Amino acid sequence: MSGAPISRFSVPDPADWPADIRERILKVQEKSGFVPNVFLTLARRPDEFRAFFAYHDALMEKPGGLSKAEREMIVVATSGANNCLYCVVAHGAILRIRAKDPRLADQIAVNYRKADITPRQRAMLDFALKTALRSHEVETADIEAAKAQGFTDEDVWDIAAIAAFYAMSNRLANVLSIRPNDEFFALGRG
Amino acid sequence: MSGAPISRFSVPDPADWPADIRERILKVQEKSGFVPNVFLTLARRPDEFRAFFAYHDALMEKPGGLSKAEREMIVVATSGANNCLYCVVAHGAILRIRAKDPRLADQIAVNYRKADITPRQRAMLDFALKTALRSHEVETADIEAAKAQGFTDEDVWDIAAIAAFYAMSNRLANVLSIRPNDEFFALGRG
Amino acid sequence: MSGAPISRFSVPDPADWPADIRERILKVQEKSGFVPNVFLTLARRPDEFRAFFAYHDALMEKPGGLSKAEREMIVVATSGANNCLYCVVAHGAILRIRAKDPRLADQIAVNYRKADITPRQRAMLDFALKTALRSHEVETADIEAAKAQGFTDEDVWDIAAIAAFYAMSNRLANVLSIRPNDEFFALGRG
Amino acid sequence: MSGAPISRFSVPDPADWPADIRERILKVQEKSGFVPNVFLTLARRPDEFRAFFAYHDALMEKPGGLSKAEREMIVVATSGANNCLYCVVAHGAILRIRAKDPRLADQIAVNYRKADITPRQRAMLDFALKTALRSHEVETADIEAAKAQGFTDEDVWDIAAIAAFYAMSNRLANVLSIRPNDEFFALGRG
Amino acid sequence: MSGAPISRFSVPDPADWPADIRERILKVQEKSGFVPNVFLTLARRPDEFRAFFAYHDALMEKPGGLSKAEREMIVVATSGANNCLYCVVAHGAILRIRAKDPRLADQIAVNYRKADITPRQRAMLDFALKTALRSHEVETADIEAAKAQGFTDEDVWDIAAIAAFYAMSNRLANVLSIRPNDEFFALGRG
Amino acid sequence: MSGAPISRFSVPDPADWPADIRERILKVQEKSGFVPNVFLTLARRPDEFRAFFAYHDALMEKPGGLSKAEREMIVVATSGANNCLYCVVAHGAILRIRAKDPRLADQIAVNYRKADITPRQRAMLDFALKTALRSHEVETADIEAAKAQGFTDEDVWDIAAIAAFYAMSNRLANVLSIRPNDEFFALGRG
Repeated sequence: MSGAPISRFSVPDPADWPADIRERILKVQEKSGFVPNVFLTLARRPDEFRAFFAYHDALMEKPGGLSKAEREMIVVATSGANNCLYCVVAHGAILRIRAKDPRLADQIAVNYRKADITPRQRAMLDFALKTALRSHEVETADIEAAKAQGFTDEDVWDIAAIAAFYAMSNRLANVLSIRPNDEFFALGRG
Repeated sequence: MSGAPISRFSVPDPADWPADIRERILKVQEKSGFVPNVFLTLARRPDEFRAFFAYHDALMEKPGGLSKAEREMIVVATSGANNCLYCVVAHGAILRIRAKDPRLADQIAVNYRKADITPRQRAMLDFALKTALRSHEVETADIEAAKAQGFTDEDVWDIAAIAAFYAMSNRLANVLSIRPNDEFFALGRG
Repeated sequence: MSGAPISRFSVPDPADWPADIRERILKVQEKSGFVPNVFLTLARRPDEFRAFFAYHDALMEKPGGLSKAEREMIVVATSGANNCLYCVVAHGAILRIRAKDPRLADQIAVNYRKADITPRQRAMLDFALKTALRSHEVETADIEAAKAQGFTDEDVWDIAAIAAFYAMSNRLANVLSIRPNDEFFALGRG
Repeated sequence: MSGAPISRFSVPDPADWPADIRERILKVQEKSGFVPNVFLTLARRPDEFRAFFAYHDALMEKPGGLSKAEREMIVVATSGANNCLYCVVAHGAILRIRAKDPRLADQIAVNYRKADITPRQRAMLDFALKTALRSHEVETADIEAAKAQGFTDEDVWDIAAIAAFYAMSNRLANVLSIRPNDEFFALGRG
Repeated sequence: MSGAPISRFSVPDPADWPADIRERILKVQEKSGFVPNVFLTLARRPDEFRAFFAYHDALMEKPGGLSKAEREMIVVATSGANNCLYCVVAHGAILRIRAKDPRLADQIAVNYRKADITPRQRAMLDFALKTALRSHEVETADIEAAKAQGFTDEDVWDIAAIAAFYAMSNRLANVLSIRPNDEFFALGRG
Repeated sequence: MSGAPISRFSVPDPADWPADIRERILKVQEKSGFVPNVFLTLARRPDEFRAFFAYHDALMEKPGGLSKAEREMIVVATSGANNCLYCVVAHGAILRIRAKDPRLADQIAVNYRKADITPRQRAMLDFALKTALRSHEVETADIEAAKAQGFTDEDVWDIAAIAAFYAMSNRLANVLSIRPNDEFFALGRG
């Protein structure tokens, strides 16, 4: 499918990328061996690109009580619930790599209740899904239930903020119709 | 209700605000006469604060085909659908001011189909609501319907991106339980 | 918006109002300073007008365990859930006046879980919303939960009957497309 | 099941019925051979009883463009959608009698799309169901679709008002848990 | 309605029925006095006919912890939730006969929470409905709740398998638009 | 995860398998190199096992207008909508093999609107999903839409029957909690 469009919107000519965006894209290409299509698509809007990835990094790359694999579990579970093809496939790949597990991402994307996860992770995903789908019904009892599994206030914020950030990301990817790179489908399955 | 908590999470002591965040908060205070609680709440996480407001400004403050009042219409309509008290009340106030109309925000928050808006704005809100609630079902026909009302590709991106950004913002405000400042309720009703 | 239509249906000439309907309308005008559009709209059908307001008065004006402000809370919460612009705006105004609180109506219309209400009132609205949205699932346990907050059998009937009456009223106002009078938006905000 | 309770709430002693309510109840008993339980239940609240039946009569007994059988079709279809046992069973019986058809009520209660009705009646029920379930989305196009089948403005009001009245009635019967009289199940099936 | 079509699809000429299918159809005709339309419709596809009825018999005719009336309760309750006219009417008749109760089927089809059933049967239907409508959310706790009412592992499998089989059957009958035989409506009401 | 249970229910000792079931299981093992867990789970109920696979073969293995890959598309799309982990993973593998495409199954499971399929296949999946999720709303117009893409009456029956069969299968696999064999996750991705 090498000829299929990257997005419903045209993507900018790399020659037109601002320097900081070029740098970020080259770095991810060097690390991954390819450029995920979300970078190419959002480059059309440099300010939004910068804010998007600054937000992403603030939630997904910083130290904290949630492991990096757990953060990706939140992304995959909520993106599955939002039927976001790009995010399920791209973050499914990252989750397989981070968790060193070739099956976990598919389990979580389809039905996290059947996934090979700990009770703590189950509580994390229950809270993340409620944030994603019925945030107006979140109450103190939900937060207490998460804390009963050992999560701190900071962890709870992290879970909610990641679910919320991908609520945005899923909607963007769905409307822009960002195509998952072919590479993602096979990554981490070995 | 001056004693009611600003958020379910404690807010940082202003003395601990980083300089850039302090500057931003003082600027909004000077302009509005008070500090909206979303600033005080997000200050607990400076990197997220910076990314959040950078994203906000990239979508809501830049030039473009949508008027500033129209952008606020998208915020109010989608926040109403997501039952986000903070966003409906705060952005309802901004919409009243930007549209110079004391009734439009309440109309749009409850049922935009009954609001005093143009057919173009109606199409804009139909598209925004589909992005907010069923983005995986957005198809080329939806985009064509928006364009038939005169919206450009850039406008369509703006509508979707604003709806997506507030999908995030609504979930954050709901889970953090950010209280709308008392001032917002009355603003722009005069 | 003085030229906007009162309803999707034409309203009768006041000269054609039956005497009892004229009397009722003049009384409300004297009391409020204007005639709420629901009176003008329903006057097209005198028998329905009479039954509607007789029912309204039997539920909203009689003595009982629920305060008048609490009854309006039920109206505003269920009308918000039914996206009824007329009822949210008109009864939001009445609630502001009866509760002497300029913010309560907006809180309850958007998300009553975030409103400044007592635990008893929260239980009342939980029961009212279940009646409005999933009455076939109401069971003895729901009624016991309400009673555990101090509500009597008569109070429970009142809560259900008010929620049910506005289930009717919301549907009528939505289909007839009754426009909220401009006056309602500002009432009780001072 | 002669010993099963009429309602979740106790019903008043007939000796305590006000004279006008006694008269109404005796009239229905004379006509039907039994007293439908909704009369016995609502007699607990005489003012609501009077308003309820006055409204009922104004919609269901008056002359108009909808036949009496068609009005009962609206009741049965919307009560089925609201899972109201009392209304489906009681009005199913009335529909069988009025339409002189032993099968129509069951068809309409379960799935009116499969019922032996005319295209005009199909359009009527489409409109009634939209009023019952999504009245905030009713738009001019829905009304035009009904009129294209020959319905007048007055007929459209009637359809909406009947659907709205039974939205109330269904919720009351569900919460009060009014038991359908045994007689209704068999009526009109002969 | 003797001229109304049996199904949206044409039904085969009885002369073309394979011998085993003819035998099965004649047997049901002899027993019931008429041939239920599901037999005539599925005869168009002999292999599917055979598998369908083999599956049906394996679940509905074998010995086990659920009475035959209880199995029909599951069919009627889930078919009501799926708005399947054929299954509600045909299995409603069978339930009336098996339970020797003229009202139970209508109660269960409209709202099983209001039906004259035992707490054990209520738990059975709660589990069946969750299987029918939200099977991905079924968890160990649901199975424990059923067992707390005395159901064994085999019974739980039966409840789930019957609900699952009619999930298939309801969809087939809805899409093929199989008409319930006139006879079913009146059976068992005497 | 070799120690994880095959199902929520215990599976029978192979020594206890009836001869025909043993034969079927050995054949699939020979062909696939492993025994899919649905065979081991359903072997607990030999009659249901036989009916299930007879039905499966009648729909999935027979000649007809739908290619075998297209039939698997229906399975994967509807199983995704029903959040059935076993069916998405097992039939996803089969679809990858039959379509000789490593990405199609993931696309279809998450959002078939984004999949690399033909307009004819898109119409097929629209019809299949309506059958799976809202079969009571299927009308002649849906069938005409499918036929406009070249599908015959027999094809339409096939699409509906496959969607219906997996409505059953998904519910069974969800309640029995059948674990997808590890082998399925990687099959056909090469």
